[in-house]
Amino acid sequence: MVYREEFHLMSNSGTPTFHNVTELAKNAVKNSNISNGIVVVYSHHTTCCVIIDECAFDMSMTGLETLQQDFVDVFEKIIPTFRTEGMYQHPGPKALKFGAEHDEDARSCHNTDAHLRSALVGRSETVVIMDGKLDMGEFGYIYFIDFDQTRARERTVQIQVIGE
Amino acid sequence: MVYREEFHLMSNSGTPTFHNVTELAKNAVKNSNISNGIVVVYSHHTTCCVIIDECAFDMSMTGLETLQQDFVDVFEKIIPTFRTEGMYQHPGPKALKFGAEHDEDARSCHNTDAHLRSALVGRSETVVIMDGKLDMGEFGYIYFIDFDQTRARERTVQIQVIGE
Amino acid sequence: MVYREEFHLMSNSGTPTFHNVTELAKNAVKNSNISNGIVVVYSHHTTCCVIIDECAFDMSMTGLETLQQDFVDVFEKIIPTFRTEGMYQHPGPKALKFGAEHDEDARSCHNTDAHLRSALVGRSETVVIMDGKLDMGEFGYIYFIDFDQTRARERTVQIQVIGE
Repeated sequence: MVYREEFHLMSNSGTPTFHNVTELAKNAVKNSNISNGIVVVYSHHTTCCVIIDECAFDMSMTGLETLQQDFVDVFEKIIPTFRTEGMYQHPGPKALKFGAEHDEDARSCHNTDAHLRSALVGRSETVVIMDGKLDMGEFGYIYFIDFDQTRARERTVQIQVIGE
Repeated sequence: MVYREEFHLMSNSGTPTFHNVTELAKNAVKNSNISNGIVVVYSHHTTCCVIIDECAFDMSMTGLETLQQDFVDVFEKIIPTFRTEGMYQHPGPKALKFGAEHDEDARSCHNTDAHLRSALVGRSETVVIMDGKLDMGEFGYIYFIDFDQTRARERTVQIQVIGE
Repeated sequence: MVYREEFHLMSNSGTPTFHNVTELAKNAVKNSNISNGIVVVYSHHTTCCVIIDECAFDMSMTGLETLQQDFVDVFEKIIPTFRTEGMYQHPGPKALKFGAEHDEDARSCHNTDAHLRSALVGRSETVVIMDGKLDMGEFGYIYFIDFDQTRARERTVQIQVIGE
């Protein structure tokens, strides 16, 4: 059996956005009537990704939970935010032309850091379903991360449940 | 068809622990009577993860295989072991209070490196099953890694087989 | 329902190789007659991996697209190409002996960087299928990456479709 739900989330500008989609996934599994199998939480976008981590309770100065901020800070070291032209080879002249033809301004095309971070982390997480419940541990949460900081926009997350 | 097996593994303190779970996964696939599909090897815990890599034969001074040690050494550069208070923003005061209420001492709460490494690597690996066998290559092994070095503890790995 | 296709790809020497396998995956889904479910694009090899990213149009001096080159450059920082003996602990004497017994010359055994990069990125990507189509976004592509630069060789990619 296969069951899918799709959700639309609004991301911020100026910082990576973490959407807690745990309840959406739990509800989709409940609605699916699937007791045993897997649920795939999947990002439609190449600048977004999905991870599982704990709730951290405390907040950083940017409004992220501390553990989320620590995760972002790791990427600031290994794949820094695109702040200076020439930091990355992408976007080149053809990519900028293609972007302009698709209503992307030059600033929005310089989201290379988000593409690279998303590719490294991976587009989805798969969670085991046992006896109708996600095997998440007590304190585990599923986060949909939008690494694109260049502008606020609507994002799509897919929740695909497979099993019996 | 869906078939699941669950295993409990004992992790060490003081170093990341690599559990070779290849035989567990192969046996679960055999027990499932599923010939074609996928097997998801999944960590219940937010400080653990699953990878596939080769056997390296030679051992490092810490008792890990050399390729495992090289993997740990990469993380020592990009997400260093939590050795000095303030290295990471997590755990903050609320997280420490929450930990204390759940029988975690202050040292055990400072496992931020393990949370970040686990989120970056991913909680599971999916392996293709063809004609009743895992398509692993001759020398590929599945490792369940516990990155939490703060104390020895029991860990749970799920092996979910889906197919026909 | 489960449906699988297998493809063989030729990788270059001297640079990581990116194979665009998007059309292979789309065709496999079409051939499967599966309308809703997932497709797992999976690497048989422990030095290869699968990612999803955008087409970048512009090319770098090595013949990669700029976004692919930026991805490789990130790894050059965190898991550098094996250029000097002793950079990594693997391969040790037993691994070299094992390699020699399996027709690998000493140079080919020094592909530790590729093993580590592949383990970090992950061996597969899972894409949601809805109404017979991959939910890739307009500009998303699936790349099979061979990180092993030590010699040209044939590689195997599996495309496993599961659903109804």
